[in-house]
Amino acid sequence: MPVAPYISDCMASSSFIRKMFEEGIQMKAQFGADKVYDFSIGNPDLEPPEKVKRLLSSLSQSADRGMHAYMPNAGYPKTREAMAAKVSREQGVPVDFSHIIMGTGAAGAMNAVLKAVLSPDNEVIVPSPFFPEYTHYVRNHGGVLKTVQTKSDFSLDTEAIRAALNGKTACVIINSPNNPTGKIYSRQDIANLARVLADHESKTGRTVTLIADEPYREVVYDKREVSPIFPLWPASVIVTSFAKNLSLPGERIGFTAVNPACTDARSMVDAIIFSTRILGFVNAPATFQRVVAECWNEPVDYSSYERRRNSLTSILNAAGIVYAEPEGAFYLFCRVPPRKDGSGGTTDSQTGDEGAFCEHLKKYRILGVPGKGFGKPGWFRLAYCVSQSSIEASRESFIEACSQW
Amino acid sequence: MPVAPYISDCMASSSFIRKMFEEGIQMKAQFGADKVYDFSIGNPDLEPPEKVKRLLSSLSQSADRGMHAYMPNAGYPKTREAMAAKVSREQGVPVDFSHIIMGTGAAGAMNAVLKAVLSPDNEVIVPSPFFPEYTHYVRNHGGVLKTVQTKSDFSLDTEAIRAALNGKTACVIINSPNNPTGKIYSRQDIANLARVLADHESKTGRTVTLIADEPYREVVYDKREVSPIFPLWPASVIVTSFAKNLSLPGERIGFTAVNPACTDARSMVDAIIFSTRILGFVNAPATFQRVVAECWNEPVDYSSYERRRNSLTSILNAAGIVYAEPEGAFYLFCRVPPRKDGSGGTTDSQTGDEGAFCEHLKKYRILGVPGKGFGKPGWFRLAYCVSQSSIEASRESFIEACSQW
Repeated sequence: MPVAPYISDCMASSSFIRKMFEEGIQMKAQFGADKVYDFSIGNPDLEPPEKVKRLLSSLSQSADRGMHAYMPNAGYPKTREAMAAKVSREQGVPVDFSHIIMGTGAAGAMNAVLKAVLSPDNEVIVPSPFFPEYTHYVRNHGGVLKTVQTKSDFSLDTEAIRAALNGKTACVIINSPNNPTGKIYSRQDIANLARVLADHESKTGRTVTLIADEPYREVVYDKREVSPIFPLWPASVIVTSFAKNLSLPGERIGFTAVNPACTDARSMVDAIIFSTRILGFVNAPATFQRVVAECWNEPVDYSSYERRRNSLTSILNAAGIVYAEPEGAFYLFCRVPPRKDGSGGTTDSQTGDEGAFCEHLKKYRILGVPGKGFGKPGWFRLAYCVSQSSIEASRESFIEACSQW
Repeated sequence: MPVAPYISDCMASSSFIRKMFEEGIQMKAQFGADKVYDFSIGNPDLEPPEKVKRLLSSLSQSADRGMHAYMPNAGYPKTREAMAAKVSREQGVPVDFSHIIMGTGAAGAMNAVLKAVLSPDNEVIVPSPFFPEYTHYVRNHGGVLKTVQTKSDFSLDTEAIRAALNGKTACVIINSPNNPTGKIYSRQDIANLARVLADHESKTGRTVTLIADEPYREVVYDKREVSPIFPLWPASVIVTSFAKNLSLPGERIGFTAVNPACTDARSMVDAIIFSTRILGFVNAPATFQRVVAECWNEPVDYSSYERRRNSLTSILNAAGIVYAEPEGAFYLFCRVPPRKDGSGGTTDSQTGDEGAFCEHLKKYRILGVPGKGFGKPGWFRLAYCVSQSSIEASRESFIEACSQW
């Protein structure tokens, strides 16, 4: 039974993140879960708020009929209203339920948006380093991903984006706080980007859609805030989920919000609803639509992620690994350290071998993800949404691994 | 914010089923739910088994950590094992968990399979009448849908399928019990189809994948059985869900089973897992994976659908509407009746105007779906998975509508 050659080719060079995650499950079975330091995947270690359990319990006792039936493809009106309240608060502009389309996680929502927007050979600009699944999501719908390097501090290089825009550009995807760098793009950065898109529009007559992928919006440190985009660029949508902030990644619940200020918001909403249907998502899972309608603003204490960040950075400091200080999310993006003889580390002028270093770490039962897939060879990513005890226990392994590198 | 022209075009000629369903919601708000006879959509009126509630309740009280976290893209091993037991029993051949990929409903599973199988311009053969979403599902992945009419009793015309096969054919999709006709393809029909595919393979060296879309497998009448396909054609997969048999369509839970007898089952499983990931499904919703692992063989009494079928057919008989007697599923596929003056009805030699007739029915607050989208102009579909009382209440409206046609 033949597999499509395109899929076979993709699989050959496929996601290191998932490979490491699944390898981690096997290593834990072999060595014991507490002996494997699995920093491979953004699978939040915090449990969902207690209210999720209470809601599930009360939903299970409801006498209402049709709790698990089809509803309109866009989702329950009540859930869409709750999401509109969330987005209105975050964006500082009024958004109502008609601008919300419930989605199957941020990944499902992103695919529905790209399907609605892309024509064959359209280009999608993504600041790099970037979440590697975007490559597939864009190609799924006939588009071409075009990466543009960020500045050395991983902030947006809006002039480089200006240079990358052309007649084929359909959208720009930004992901802030960023996976893998933890960078939050400043309001000034977003305003500059909007200026670049406005210049492009007045020069060419072409409107570029800005897609903000925001699953980490709430997970920020040092009281930082994530800039709104709706007041800054009308042709914009927000794609997000409750995977990271409420620790519900397995339930596939998220949504898209379309900027009411764009001139043809209604047809864009309709197109995303249509795409949600024809891609086979049909609708976001019913029960968790009801859960997030009640839980979206449940307070969550992310300070433990900050403590874990601090613990892991102190270990990396001791081991001699240099990293970018994350402002949000739960990833540390690190340079490959120099070898014992001083050669081979990643610096501003040279690129270390992150594949070899990640293989080396595995010998010490440490799982990290090589940066090449994120568009940044010479670096690797550690996801620290794991238990504090696992981080502490990894100290000697990191130090030993680096001393033997 | 520009919508892709392809999507705008599709939307202009989009699903009557969903349009009618959403129109029905509005009409119910306007006239009262009991005054609208909504036969538009396969949204089961039966409630899920009580065990679903008990499981949700006990899951909500579980002290286990990570109940809502990521798991491997293929799903929980325990759930995959349960599905393997189900498929082994139905197909009469041993299937183990490694041949199962959990999916986001049958629609999600079907998209993942088509993504794994199709190369650009590949053809997919579908016996017609057919579920109209297949058109989109095939196009999503660069394929071309090629319909082949069934015989006058809606059984497979395997010689017509033989004639439609060519070097571009990648797969054949069969849907039994069929939506919209309620037809169950006999074991002999499937065996004949397998023979046609085998002849094609020996002549051209090309293996055509048979995809059986089986969400209605359990919903059958008069003790009929749905034929297995795994013993008959090795290059085959089954796509299904718990939307119709357990009344969970809103939860988006289903799976794909790959025939262990095909020569490269492992690579096909891997390709479907990969497609599930990159299309943005990522994994089937976690909680309902746990629910169906325990509920898949919960007995459900479908006799009420049989009673509803009998009630609705007696009404149609009284109104003078001719239909195909369904063997399974919960749809009646009907001919447009002749007008008062005897003209315009659908017969073997002429095609009535099903669009006009469905519009006419709407005046009597009856919602049905025109057959054109199913590949069969002159016919219309009534989904009778609605309450018995609603069916009974529709009697006078049907009779009045037909007498005024």
